[in-house]
Amino acid sequence: MEVRDLISERGERYLGWLIEACSIPSLAEQPDGLVEMAAWVEQHLRDLGGTTERLSYEGAPDAILGKLGSGERSLLIYDHYDVQPVDPIELWSTKPFDPAMNDGYIYARGVADNKGDLVARLAALEVYRDIHGELPFALKFLVEGEEETGSRSFEAIVERYGDRLQADGCIWEGNQVDHAGRPDIVFGAKGLAYVELNCRLLKDDQHSSRAVVAPSAAWRMIEALRTLRDPSGRVLIDGFYDDVVEPTDDDLAMLDALPFDEDAERERLGVEEFIGGATGLEFKRRYFYEPTCNVAGFVTGFTVPGSSKTVLPKEAMAKLDIRLVPDQDPHDIVDKLRAHLDARGFTDITIDKFSMEHPVRSPRDSLVGRAAVQAGRDVFEMEPVVAPMMIGTGPMYPIAHTLGIPTVSPGGIHHPGSNIHAPNENARVDDFLKIIEYTVEYLRLFGELDA
Amino acid sequence: MEVRDLISERGERYLGWLIEACSIPSLAEQPDGLVEMAAWVEQHLRDLGGTTERLSYEGAPDAILGKLGSGERSLLIYDHYDVQPVDPIELWSTKPFDPAMNDGYIYARGVADNKGDLVARLAALEVYRDIHGELPFALKFLVEGEEETGSRSFEAIVERYGDRLQADGCIWEGNQVDHAGRPDIVFGAKGLAYVELNCRLLKDDQHSSRAVVAPSAAWRMIEALRTLRDPSGRVLIDGFYDDVVEPTDDDLAMLDALPFDEDAERERLGVEEFIGGATGLEFKRRYFYEPTCNVAGFVTGFTVPGSSKTVLPKEAMAKLDIRLVPDQDPHDIVDKLRAHLDARGFTDITIDKFSMEHPVRSPRDSLVGRAAVQAGRDVFEMEPVVAPMMIGTGPMYPIAHTLGIPTVSPGGIHHPGSNIHAPNENARVDDFLKIIEYTVEYLRLFGELDA
Repeated sequence: MEVRDLISERGERYLGWLIEACSIPSLAEQPDGLVEMAAWVEQHLRDLGGTTERLSYEGAPDAILGKLGSGERSLLIYDHYDVQPVDPIELWSTKPFDPAMNDGYIYARGVADNKGDLVARLAALEVYRDIHGELPFALKFLVEGEEETGSRSFEAIVERYGDRLQADGCIWEGNQVDHAGRPDIVFGAKGLAYVELNCRLLKDDQHSSRAVVAPSAAWRMIEALRTLRDPSGRVLIDGFYDDVVEPTDDDLAMLDALPFDEDAERERLGVEEFIGGATGLEFKRRYFYEPTCNVAGFVTGFTVPGSSKTVLPKEAMAKLDIRLVPDQDPHDIVDKLRAHLDARGFTDITIDKFSMEHPVRSPRDSLVGRAAVQAGRDVFEMEPVVAPMMIGTGPMYPIAHTLGIPTVSPGGIHHPGSNIHAPNENARVDDFLKIIEYTVEYLRLFGELDA
Repeated sequence: MEVRDLISERGERYLGWLIEACSIPSLAEQPDGLVEMAAWVEQHLRDLGGTTERLSYEGAPDAILGKLGSGERSLLIYDHYDVQPVDPIELWSTKPFDPAMNDGYIYARGVADNKGDLVARLAALEVYRDIHGELPFALKFLVEGEEETGSRSFEAIVERYGDRLQADGCIWEGNQVDHAGRPDIVFGAKGLAYVELNCRLLKDDQHSSRAVVAPSAAWRMIEALRTLRDPSGRVLIDGFYDDVVEPTDDDLAMLDALPFDEDAERERLGVEEFIGGATGLEFKRRYFYEPTCNVAGFVTGFTVPGSSKTVLPKEAMAKLDIRLVPDQDPHDIVDKLRAHLDARGFTDITIDKFSMEHPVRSPRDSLVGRAAVQAGRDVFEMEPVVAPMMIGTGPMYPIAHTLGIPTVSPGGIHHPGSNIHAPNENARVDDFLKIIEYTVEYLRLFGELDA
């Protein structure tokens, strides 16, 4: 029987698994849900004939490591069983943990990020076994539970259990299938330094008449921020670009071949043009290779729209999310931010670190990389979209850099309208079944291609 | 019988009036309360033997004009019967419209601003009559109901009914009694241009990975704001200082004589020094004669403290409260702000006007001014604190400038800890009784002093 036919025959069964997984509220705010979901993953890996162990780290939900198959080669798969919070809950049309089917779509928190891929991969292992027999390589299926809160313990877990995770290749959680139905395949991720800046200059908020003699935390923060970036988007933090690795000719060739519908993106954003009027190769270079310093949030004083209150705010708070490219180091960047502010006298602005993720790139001609691209071409019957890095962030660095495992994030279940991290998260049933088939194929190729 | 003795004898009666007035929720959010309070004021003016009429203007609560006494001279008194909103209600220790007595203090919304003064003045009229007989001048008691929402119709009301309001002097709502128990007396008010700036550059909030190509409303607003003010507090809006009238030598002499406890103010604010290290006469000059451009609020993106969310905000909003000094014009200043932003390319930032108040100064050697100062000296048995203007704002301009009536704001019921516009607003019973006595005395002097 063909792979595709078997998946079609078992569609309801695998969809049942997905609905079951999406019914479990596995998020940081509901620790019981995390525990239940970890057990669910464990049970499914065992049902597939695997052995499992828990990778524990103080204060973190256990990561699950399942092992199946044997052979000379070894493959690590990375997914996560936790999901984003559901707020703003009032914008959901259905209940986030009561999966709803409508017109070929499944709506549920986590269905696209990343339970859809996780379940599709579990299903693919069953299909592989029933069509091709036992896996001819050692598969290590790693599923962590802290990704959506920044994988704070993941580096420590990899350090503690690195010898059990070592492999010849790594399949990272799924990337999107694009608007044209092509699998997006990437070989790395941007990094992130997320910091909160706080400035407090007064005991209490004051009537704004006092602004004439009392210092303003609002102005202070605005003055400090304004030194960090110029209007073209260039980051002005002293030394910010020191460790940036410029794209090679090969990288630029990859970008040149990469399809990108700029009109659709402008339409989606609602803009006339991109920053600096970038287009074509220059647009793609910026998109994948430029770091950014973004103000994710800023609040001070009285902020009710359409109403007036005259207050001199005692404090101001800004959140910066600084996206990094190889080889910038998030901790080094925060040190540079501190030094930059200090050098300009802004010693009264504090910096607190939140998510800190290293950027990372992996080679695209590795065995696992070639398997993902060729399987994409075969199963989707279209040329995959191959890009150097995802422009978002994931904790890929400890695997791809520290352990040095060639890593690829193949096409996955989510599509451009999946509302990842947002209300009404959704995935298409057809994509779910397609990702099962795609997974079976790259597993087969990983076992068979020349090294 | 002495004035003081009679007030002491009738203390409970007048306190009863005050508690009654403070039990009425007369704020914009409760139009029924405004109606009830207007009727309460009307009834009390009639009980004193006065006639009343309503000064109506479309969409505004009626202002009440009461008339008592007769003679060559005429005096206008201005108060307001509306109060501030009560939010944040959870920070109140008692119910805002259920006046509570504790240790010589009365807690209620409006007790200090401005029902305490309003009721003290009504009481003073009764005491005056019973001690001195009929008022030897025409008193016009004007009580409006829109002050706490910016007196938006007050200019129009004064324009429509100006002939009935004309007088030889005006007593404005009460200023504070300071920490040393001295009445603060002022002859004008700073102005205000309160505007909301909005910038929206994207259809929706975006994942911050898009910051690399999509414009940021947050940065745009920060860049625009940064052009408006330098770190010393100097306002950089083109032409901002064109109409500022510098203090005269006489003004500076008044400031020199003005006591100001800088240490107490630094302590209260929690600062090491004032802006620019100002102290002494330079501090007082800034305090009373400098305009400001204050950021009363700024919000964009994700602002929950201690948590990270990576978002490129679609929009940003800032509230500026720009305090003005004579002869700046709030509408002209907003025009200048618009032109300033346009000249720098910030045509994508909108400006909406809220409170717009002209700054105003009145002479201090007028009959009513001399009556207020001399009565303060006599009743409080201390030298009053005489300052050119209040550093806050009130709708004094239509009276003091348009009608040209010499205006003074004498010491009133509130003290530095009165929490005006804030939770747990309060006034002292002793101050209430003292303000009744003070009012009787300046009414007497207004009738008797040489013109």
